[in-house]
Amino acid sequence: MDPLKIGIVGAAGRMGAMLVQQVRAQPGEARLIGATERAGSAAIGKDAGLLAGGEALGVMVSDDAVALFAAADAVIDFTAPAATVAHAALAAQGKTIHVIGTTGLEAAHDAEIAKAARHTAIIRAANFSVGVNLLAGLSRRVAALLGDEFDIEIVEMHHRHKVDAPSGTALMLGQAAADGRKVNLKDVEVRGRDGITGQRVAGTIGFASLRGGDVVGDHTVIFAADGERVELTHKASSRQIFARGAVRAALWGRGKAPGLYSMQDVLGFAD
Amino acid sequence: MDPLKIGIVGAAGRMGAMLVQQVRAQPGEARLIGATERAGSAAIGKDAGLLAGGEALGVMVSDDAVALFAAADAVIDFTAPAATVAHAALAAQGKTIHVIGTTGLEAAHDAEIAKAARHTAIIRAANFSVGVNLLAGLSRRVAALLGDEFDIEIVEMHHRHKVDAPSGTALMLGQAAADGRKVNLKDVEVRGRDGITGQRVAGTIGFASLRGGDVVGDHTVIFAADGERVELTHKASSRQIFARGAVRAALWGRGKAPGLYSMQDVLGFAD
Amino acid sequence: MDPLKIGIVGAAGRMGAMLVQQVRAQPGEARLIGATERAGSAAIGKDAGLLAGGEALGVMVSDDAVALFAAADAVIDFTAPAATVAHAALAAQGKTIHVIGTTGLEAAHDAEIAKAARHTAIIRAANFSVGVNLLAGLSRRVAALLGDEFDIEIVEMHHRHKVDAPSGTALMLGQAAADGRKVNLKDVEVRGRDGITGQRVAGTIGFASLRGGDVVGDHTVIFAADGERVELTHKASSRQIFARGAVRAALWGRGKAPGLYSMQDVLGFAD
Amino acid sequence: MDPLKIGIVGAAGRMGAMLVQQVRAQPGEARLIGATERAGSAAIGKDAGLLAGGEALGVMVSDDAVALFAAADAVIDFTAPAATVAHAALAAQGKTIHVIGTTGLEAAHDAEIAKAARHTAIIRAANFSVGVNLLAGLSRRVAALLGDEFDIEIVEMHHRHKVDAPSGTALMLGQAAADGRKVNLKDVEVRGRDGITGQRVAGTIGFASLRGGDVVGDHTVIFAADGERVELTHKASSRQIFARGAVRAALWGRGKAPGLYSMQDVLGFAD
Repeated sequence: MDPLKIGIVGAAGRMGAMLVQQVRAQPGEARLIGATERAGSAAIGKDAGLLAGGEALGVMVSDDAVALFAAADAVIDFTAPAATVAHAALAAQGKTIHVIGTTGLEAAHDAEIAKAARHTAIIRAANFSVGVNLLAGLSRRVAALLGDEFDIEIVEMHHRHKVDAPSGTALMLGQAAADGRKVNLKDVEVRGRDGITGQRVAGTIGFASLRGGDVVGDHTVIFAADGERVELTHKASSRQIFARGAVRAALWGRGKAPGLYSMQDVLGFAD
Repeated sequence: MDPLKIGIVGAAGRMGAMLVQQVRAQPGEARLIGATERAGSAAIGKDAGLLAGGEALGVMVSDDAVALFAAADAVIDFTAPAATVAHAALAAQGKTIHVIGTTGLEAAHDAEIAKAARHTAIIRAANFSVGVNLLAGLSRRVAALLGDEFDIEIVEMHHRHKVDAPSGTALMLGQAAADGRKVNLKDVEVRGRDGITGQRVAGTIGFASLRGGDVVGDHTVIFAADGERVELTHKASSRQIFARGAVRAALWGRGKAPGLYSMQDVLGFAD
Repeated sequence: MDPLKIGIVGAAGRMGAMLVQQVRAQPGEARLIGATERAGSAAIGKDAGLLAGGEALGVMVSDDAVALFAAADAVIDFTAPAATVAHAALAAQGKTIHVIGTTGLEAAHDAEIAKAARHTAIIRAANFSVGVNLLAGLSRRVAALLGDEFDIEIVEMHHRHKVDAPSGTALMLGQAAADGRKVNLKDVEVRGRDGITGQRVAGTIGFASLRGGDVVGDHTVIFAADGERVELTHKASSRQIFARGAVRAALWGRGKAPGLYSMQDVLGFAD
Repeated sequence: MDPLKIGIVGAAGRMGAMLVQQVRAQPGEARLIGATERAGSAAIGKDAGLLAGGEALGVMVSDDAVALFAAADAVIDFTAPAATVAHAALAAQGKTIHVIGTTGLEAAHDAEIAKAARHTAIIRAANFSVGVNLLAGLSRRVAALLGDEFDIEIVEMHHRHKVDAPSGTALMLGQAAADGRKVNLKDVEVRGRDGITGQRVAGTIGFASLRGGDVVGDHTVIFAADGERVELTHKASSRQIFARGAVRAALWGRGKAPGLYSMQDVLGFAD
């Protein structure tokens, strides 16, 4: 099988550079055939390989997303909501696989992406790491198997620059646990305990957030009963795992029917 | 349904006392009807309830295991290999449920127990806690889902009086991971690393053991790849969870066909 | 040296029983010579050893604290504020070592205790465990040695019945870290992170609380910089450690000059 | 004060490249004035800055260590034992500060380095991170403060390419703990527990090693007693902390009297 022709939008950003490196690291499977940035970016016209901190790849950054989606088998997109919606339309037209890691998408954006997914395979995730997606599946399963005598708590630590708490990934893990128990997360979540809280209410799911240093992301889901605890932990030490997961998603998308897919689908972790 | 008539062998030991307490704590479901100790034990003739540190139960410790197995619906047994094999024969004769938590059983003992299980339900486990048995199922599943780029390591900590390493539970978790990968644990295990070991060989499963204080039992199964780790942990803080699990196993055994069962069966965690 | 003659006030409560057991466990160093309870208590006249769940000690519980303080070398006191203040006066008269673990003391009580401490050695602590007091000393020391490029976070987990957050011990650890940095804890503490918090502010100390199961108490103080983390952890698995610390304090008090001492002094952890 | 003139031996290796980057990152304090590699290395004649993955620095890699030690104020050396001994002699001649991170040094090498240290300041460490050296000091202190009722265990995890166990850093931490207890580490160490070990012997120090993924280095020193555990942990997530520490050591060495120094001296952590 020929290597998958991959395009990267937002190729000059930190995540873009990691994606370029990751594609380069899998020469038999994938090949970078185009890269774009916003019109006016200083990166336009430069070699995407050099920008990513390696040798030249002969792929110059352009601002022509239309051409990119027409030429590529798959495009990976960690940009911004408005751009991502426009890209999804191009993916639909070109029957291009569209891998979306963009955050901050709201309901209106979701609707546009869903429309595009009638025409091509779109894979979308809050977190592209194998480990975190595995942990979500395990959390759902364990929450379903264990009764309310096991209290569920989720603790995460991230670097000092993170501006929100709990992390999106912690909320994703909490959602998985709530799904396992067939309850609505909003009804059972307890966030930011402080002061006189009273005794813990059975069936709730607690969240706690730590911030410091340059921690990429640690997450633990705790199930605590009398006399024993089960803890499911993920520790990310490199953002490269997100790039690796996104490329894996693109490769998985080859030949898939149009539709909206998750990393759970890609990894085969869906129960 | 009448409470299950439970007998306890080795009733004056530490685990025996916990089993007595646990049966007492579930009066609607179970009732202690007999207790034995080795002939010559100072406990013979004493009340099993008093020995367990509570009120008298009117059940005097005897050395007559034959009578016990004849009278009981189920007998719980955390004794020693030779005694356990003899008990299994009595269980077979009396169609008594036999719950076995004895450690140190070897192949010859296993064969005798298997023979007895043709005639009655025998439930046997290296560890009767809900959490550890859940962890074993998760370890098998995760090992099956993740490739060899995830290195598997198992670390455990137990109290200073433990005489063997790794713990039986650690080996059970390693077995589960090996099963998940469809390999033979003996072929891939690495125990007691020390000195010039050379680089880690892909596909191996490492074990490490810590000893200290009065730690009841902590176990972690680590799956470590480049850039990320998944860790599955169980922390036991009270031996009461083992007694709770053993009584749960006895109750589950009611009405079951003859055969050899595990806690995975009892808990319904089998995949 | 003769064993220290120890008296216990409030000997029939949960903590009193643990103290009796602890004294019994150190026969060469300490000897229980008296035990009291409130006038009218059902424990009066009973053997303190039996009440504590062991064999008889020949020490009957009385309600005569005056005689107890006159006869003992040291008295251990986990009672209530008003009783403790009265006991401190008796300790002052008898030159008796007074070990105080009573909680809920207010400024007026403190003043009375300080007066008594002009005449005898009084040792007082919020937490008598060796480990937690060691951790407080280490936290102060590490906070003093490391610069603001190390972010300080404190996370604790306790059982589901705890009604306040963070734990008093977590706040004690935070106070120690703030002391080490010569800042006021109130000025730098960040509690209950939730929602859009903005980036972490350098020099702050974060707190996070987990609740679940029957966890006796876990505390970790994290110092996180770019590329590395130092973590200081204490895990309590039994309340017996508090009794052990109180007896150690009593033994340490032998021959000490009058004054008010802390567990930091007892343990030699004061910088 | 002029920037310190720094030379790097072994400049084209992974650690060499990090050292070049670190010197570049502190332009006001340090300046790279030379870099060497083994005769015949492909790096000879190339720009050390380019080799390190950044812009050119105008410093070409040579194979002339004699000239390097003559020209530099300080030379940083993470090479191999035989080379390091030769470098130490050059440092002695040139009164050059010599920072040594080389591992695998044996008694004969140590003796040569000690001789060189009569003539110049040599700073040598098994691990140059702030956190690990802090942890060593804490381990010594805690081991001295706590009695033998606290069992000491040391567990470490490193990447799959590490060929020896326990890590040099784990042994350094064990040495610190043994020093604190005023015992000889060789007399009390227990390594690679496996099989029927018997009960733990009081006063011993246990070591356990985990290997997997690309873990830079995690170390925990556990002090476990009945009812409580104190754990001191260091987690390294980037090798840059070692380069940072080595450059810090070089800067600290300015103006120091001849002698053999440790990172404990550099950091002022010595008790």
